[in-house]
Amino acid sequence: MSHGDVDPEVVMTSPHRINGDAGSRSRWQTFWKLQSWQSSMLLLVGVAVCVLVPGCSATDTDIALDAKATLNHRIQSLDLLVFVFLLALTVLTIWLFKHHRVSWLHETGLAVIYGLIVGAIIRYAGTSATLVHIQVEPQGVPTYSDKLPPDTLWFRYPVNQTNGTKAPDVITYAYVFRGQVHDVDENEIDLKATFDPEVFFNIILPPIIFYAGYSLKKKYFFRNLGAILTFAIVGTTLSAFLIGGFMYGCVKLMPKYLSSSFTFLDSLYFGALISPTDPLTILAIFNDLRVDVNLYALVLGESVLNDAVAIVLSGAIQNYGEHYSSTGDFETTAFLRSLSDFFSIFFLSLMIGAAMGCLTALMTKFTRVRDFPLLESALFVLMSYSTFLLAEATELTGVVAVLFCGICQAHYTYNNLSEDSRQRTKQIFELLNFLAENFIFSYIGVSMFTFPKHHFDAGFIITAFICAAIGRAVNVYPLSWLLNIKRKPKISTNFQHMLFFAGLRGAMSFALAIRNTVSDERQTMLTATSLIVIFTVVIQGGAANFLLNWLKIPVGVDDETEQLNNYQVHSVYNSMDNSHPQTSDGYLQDVEGGGVNRNKMRLSGGTDTNLDTPVDGPNGSLGGASGGRRRNSHEKAILARIWGNFDTKYMKPLLTHSRPTLLETLPVCCNPIARLLTTTQQLTQDGSEFRRVDSDSDICIDNDTGNGLSQDGTGAAPGVGRRNSLSRMEILEHVQSPVSTRIRLLGFYGKKL
Amino acid sequence: MSHGDVDPEVVMTSPHRINGDAGSRSRWQTFWKLQSWQSSMLLLVGVAVCVLVPGCSATDTDIALDAKATLNHRIQSLDLLVFVFLLALTVLTIWLFKHHRVSWLHETGLAVIYGLIVGAIIRYAGTSATLVHIQVEPQGVPTYSDKLPPDTLWFRYPVNQTNGTKAPDVITYAYVFRGQVHDVDENEIDLKATFDPEVFFNIILPPIIFYAGYSLKKKYFFRNLGAILTFAIVGTTLSAFLIGGFMYGCVKLMPKYLSSSFTFLDSLYFGALISPTDPLTILAIFNDLRVDVNLYALVLGESVLNDAVAIVLSGAIQNYGEHYSSTGDFETTAFLRSLSDFFSIFFLSLMIGAAMGCLTALMTKFTRVRDFPLLESALFVLMSYSTFLLAEATELTGVVAVLFCGICQAHYTYNNLSEDSRQRTKQIFELLNFLAENFIFSYIGVSMFTFPKHHFDAGFIITAFICAAIGRAVNVYPLSWLLNIKRKPKISTNFQHMLFFAGLRGAMSFALAIRNTVSDERQTMLTATSLIVIFTVVIQGGAANFLLNWLKIPVGVDDETEQLNNYQVHSVYNSMDNSHPQTSDGYLQDVEGGGVNRNKMRLSGGTDTNLDTPVDGPNGSLGGASGGRRRNSHEKAILARIWGNFDTKYMKPLLTHSRPTLLETLPVCCNPIARLLTTTQQLTQDGSEFRRVDSDSDICIDNDTGNGLSQDGTGAAPGVGRRNSLSRMEILEHVQSPVSTRIRLLGFYGKKL
Repeated sequence: MSHGDVDPEVVMTSPHRINGDAGSRSRWQTFWKLQSWQSSMLLLVGVAVCVLVPGCSATDTDIALDAKATLNHRIQSLDLLVFVFLLALTVLTIWLFKHHRVSWLHETGLAVIYGLIVGAIIRYAGTSATLVHIQVEPQGVPTYSDKLPPDTLWFRYPVNQTNGTKAPDVITYAYVFRGQVHDVDENEIDLKATFDPEVFFNIILPPIIFYAGYSLKKKYFFRNLGAILTFAIVGTTLSAFLIGGFMYGCVKLMPKYLSSSFTFLDSLYFGALISPTDPLTILAIFNDLRVDVNLYALVLGESVLNDAVAIVLSGAIQNYGEHYSSTGDFETTAFLRSLSDFFSIFFLSLMIGAAMGCLTALMTKFTRVRDFPLLESALFVLMSYSTFLLAEATELTGVVAVLFCGICQAHYTYNNLSEDSRQRTKQIFELLNFLAENFIFSYIGVSMFTFPKHHFDAGFIITAFICAAIGRAVNVYPLSWLLNIKRKPKISTNFQHMLFFAGLRGAMSFALAIRNTVSDERQTMLTATSLIVIFTVVIQGGAANFLLNWLKIPVGVDDETEQLNNYQVHSVYNSMDNSHPQTSDGYLQDVEGGGVNRNKMRLSGGTDTNLDTPVDGPNGSLGGASGGRRRNSHEKAILARIWGNFDTKYMKPLLTHSRPTLLETLPVCCNPIARLLTTTQQLTQDGSEFRRVDSDSDICIDNDTGNGLSQDGTGAAPGVGRRNSLSRMEILEHVQSPVSTRIRLLGFYGKKL
Repeated sequence: MSHGDVDPEVVMTSPHRINGDAGSRSRWQTFWKLQSWQSSMLLLVGVAVCVLVPGCSATDTDIALDAKATLNHRIQSLDLLVFVFLLALTVLTIWLFKHHRVSWLHETGLAVIYGLIVGAIIRYAGTSATLVHIQVEPQGVPTYSDKLPPDTLWFRYPVNQTNGTKAPDVITYAYVFRGQVHDVDENEIDLKATFDPEVFFNIILPPIIFYAGYSLKKKYFFRNLGAILTFAIVGTTLSAFLIGGFMYGCVKLMPKYLSSSFTFLDSLYFGALISPTDPLTILAIFNDLRVDVNLYALVLGESVLNDAVAIVLSGAIQNYGEHYSSTGDFETTAFLRSLSDFFSIFFLSLMIGAAMGCLTALMTKFTRVRDFPLLESALFVLMSYSTFLLAEATELTGVVAVLFCGICQAHYTYNNLSEDSRQRTKQIFELLNFLAENFIFSYIGVSMFTFPKHHFDAGFIITAFICAAIGRAVNVYPLSWLLNIKRKPKISTNFQHMLFFAGLRGAMSFALAIRNTVSDERQTMLTATSLIVIFTVVIQGGAANFLLNWLKIPVGVDDETEQLNNYQVHSVYNSMDNSHPQTSDGYLQDVEGGGVNRNKMRLSGGTDTNLDTPVDGPNGSLGGASGGRRRNSHEKAILARIWGNFDTKYMKPLLTHSRPTLLETLPVCCNPIARLLTTTQQLTQDGSEFRRVDSDSDICIDNDTGNGLSQDGTGAAPGVGRRNSLSRMEILEHVQSPVSTRIRLLGFYGKKL
């Protein structure tokens, strides 16, 4: 920032002056960094104000400092304002598109395109301002012998007196450590960037990932658990190593300078960051079109989990590079240590997330904080956020922890919440998710032009595109083939094509790429990643619609009628179960507030519950999985069945008000403890003694149990928890279900019938 | 932070290394600053990890840097975690207190007390770690002649080679400008603080103030507009100057050193920051007890507005000190300039806020974004936040802008929103408000012990307590006397006592005090302010309950029945109007989602709508104002009447779907424009042609008009918009209302009846 035009006269300053603002604002400023074009714009105003004010008799340095701090604050505000307006514009355009049923461009694509436009304007319309820097060295003899640089520098800054006769006065300024200057020539680069990359990991990603966990369709998730885990863990790792190896080979063949400095570790890191797929755009489309639930579950489950895998994997690779290997050559012990890092960090993060989720469930179960929904929601939000912080504080991965915390919150805590809190927490995280997603995609667009650390290398970019596609193919086809060996409802070829095509890259890839842009290789990776993200989101996302058609994947069938024709009574369970999945499984309910939101159309943040029905498509192979509930026990993965059993018998009775209680499931010797952990509400199930307890949630919980029983293979009818809109007719239909269920149902609806 | 125990061997580093994390994390770190006790705790772990890993063959400096960055990140996480847990604890305790009906301690008092406890633990349990700093000077001849310090320093840091034979290698580190070091001896102080004070102005206060505006009970607000404006603007200014003058006199009489350095400007600043009252605690109590609406409106209106007045006033005083006066003596022209600053900043901020609110209203009126509640809510949040940013970017006061933006959003935009968005926006801001409030009060407690810039001076503190009380008394009693001359429902003596007593100091005072702690005087002010806040919130807040009793101010009357006995038919309008105030006046509706939230009990963030009824208290004088609607025209302030008229005729038809339309209110010559600005929905009022338009809002809007008409003195019945729960009975009661209303009502309910 040039401030040479300020009158150079300097007055001596008293030691105690009122410029605390300058200090504190400049601290604030380091958070939101400078944007050159606005700075030049605003500087004129700032300088003009300072120059024109005639009463400028006070300490000029102070005023100039204060003006500068104010200026910086305004620049940051303007900076954020650009993004906020961009988001508002995106929102309005999305509305317009939805209104006119435009399907070839989706919200994230739109955000990226707007971002690109604004980024180009900022880049080419603005002038380039420079930050003033000065080389310093330690005062006197450099006695400081520590190998770490000091935390702060005290710069004794000489100010010349106006009268010129006295010896120069000295003011001491504090400077805070920022980082290493790697390339002394490109000095601007480091300070003219836009947002700190850590903002993504600490502010933008957590709500997105939490919401993904919180709104996961657990039933289908667990039904496809084996496939999802295979794709997410094995597939992502495979893809990362394959892309890494392939990239390394290709780069080494290139004639350019990259081949000399590009290590195998670099390419592995690239493989890890480009492997995770983004749920966002593709699921928004799936949601709009009501695609087959199992396909939906596969894509969602995989993309949510592989984000978690990728962040831990890239961390392990980075660690390997920093701590274990100085040469970049392969070291077996170091590799094994990194591997154990990977697993321990992943599972410890998982455990912390799950533990915090369960803790919240216990808190909400054993207190009656639900009487005060605001308190309850606040508690929920605080506990979820503290999961992230706790994981970060213990050097684990906060993003992974919040994902599993979200899953547990949805599975257990959600059942204990009051109706008000359910809606509120869902709506809050939905909104946060929406804003965060669109912000990151706008930023991807803007940063293509404004982020100074891009490094275009056509060869690398082309190779990266090819490798990304190959990596995705390796992830999908061979693993699908493997899975199909044992899997009862096979993943059909068309579904495999769609899975391949659904591999859009998104927020996580970008965040990992922009986190570290120190070296040329990393900058090249960032450029390639940005382009891949933009391409896949805009082009692939836009084409998904047509591809679904072309692959004849069933979409948008009018569910209820279709189902009734095919499955009669069972279809009712299914459609109810699907349209209100969380009622039975702790999912988020599209609560309609007693019909208040009739005209509400969902804008999915990619993970909504609008997907009403599993349909037997022409392929039939996968869609058939959701046809009848009785086949469940055969179709369900063993893992899922064991977990379901344990969950119903111990976890749910412990953490929610569900039945059977622990008194029934634990061995007799544990009865005293079991009694302690069972609430009165649990024992008196219909909640008649709790005047103020929400009746919906009781049913919901009980229904949970019903579903749990069906997981045990007893075939009980799930999804009876829709009391809000449950008609006599529907209840009667339920009563026609198997005897074991009928008895339960009569218990609940006895009064009604 | 001592890191001397790390093995001092240093290896030469390649120019391109993988330590971007170090840089970016340290940037992040400057935002959340260090906490000494955790740092020492974690440092051990960090160093141990680094020392114990046998494969430490890579560049040690890098690893150490990375470990340090990681450590800092973890410390910040831990720091935040402390506050998050503190908040969760507060939430649970509040629930316990509410559950057991404890009334002598309220949530804010609780947050403060917990904060104090945790602060004491942190202070006395932790050890003191120091930050390493080093004095530097410009390299070579100091040729840099600008009077501003450079933005960044490049520190050429000499690293000694391990083999010791080569010349020392040099790494360049970047350091960012932080602020001036005022006292070279107290070097720790500046860096061991907890949160940056600007966090309060940029993150914590905006949602609190916005929510205050968004949930203001505008009807009572406008009815008491004259009194509120008098108290807020005249009273606060008066109180600020009086406290300032008094403090100055007292301090000058003190024997201590303060008297020499304490300028009149300093004491004025103190007057400005201690004058604003906090709505929070006292309104929470009023809400719980259902105190007289007019008293409620007076206290709320005053405390919301005087926050805005105080922030602008203190800014003007600061400006006067910095820009216009170097001596601290009085300068008439400078004073006048500051005065014009004060008014221009206040009113420009007001205008920006109002303009953005109206813009949002226009957006929501002329698009059908309401079909997609998520988009609509996102737009609402984005526009509200951009108001803050816009004001800050144009050097105005963001907090004042969001206040008036909130008022406009509630008054106009709210009517255009879909039911879902109404709930969602209200709930989101309610939660944000709750979290922000409790955070700031926890922080007040914690910072009493951890913030290093406290300066205890018993004399000053005692004087400050006395002055604060006198200032409040001067604000309340003489102005009430003046107001009572013309005011029809007089403010009774007991009400005046309550107003005096309700003058708790809170978030705004603290934020202003902690913003600037450069000098000893400012630190003394901070200490005094913190103590006043703690005292008033805990002691006065706790005693308010008893005082209300003692002053015989009517509380907790069972509204509906009481009202029916007193006013028969009219009372129904009133009670409906009050329990669903926004239906008629754009207030926030306690939407019950068709009975879903039956067991919801409100935990007020101080500004809820639970206050169901205006009651004629024993005093009668003020409470009577809300008795019958027909008396309105006589009771209403002239200002409020003029505004109401203008609002109904032009603003509401322009910005909402209300009636009469602009076609009816504008002169005939403007018809083409009026037609353009009138929606079809507005013309066809009952909305039958809009299949997907929420029927509730139509009624709500029309009802708005009904209320508007009553403001015109026609006495139309307000509050018929409760279709959700409107029974036949109630409708029939409405039909018994005056003819003018009956015709309108029949129009709406014709189909139903």
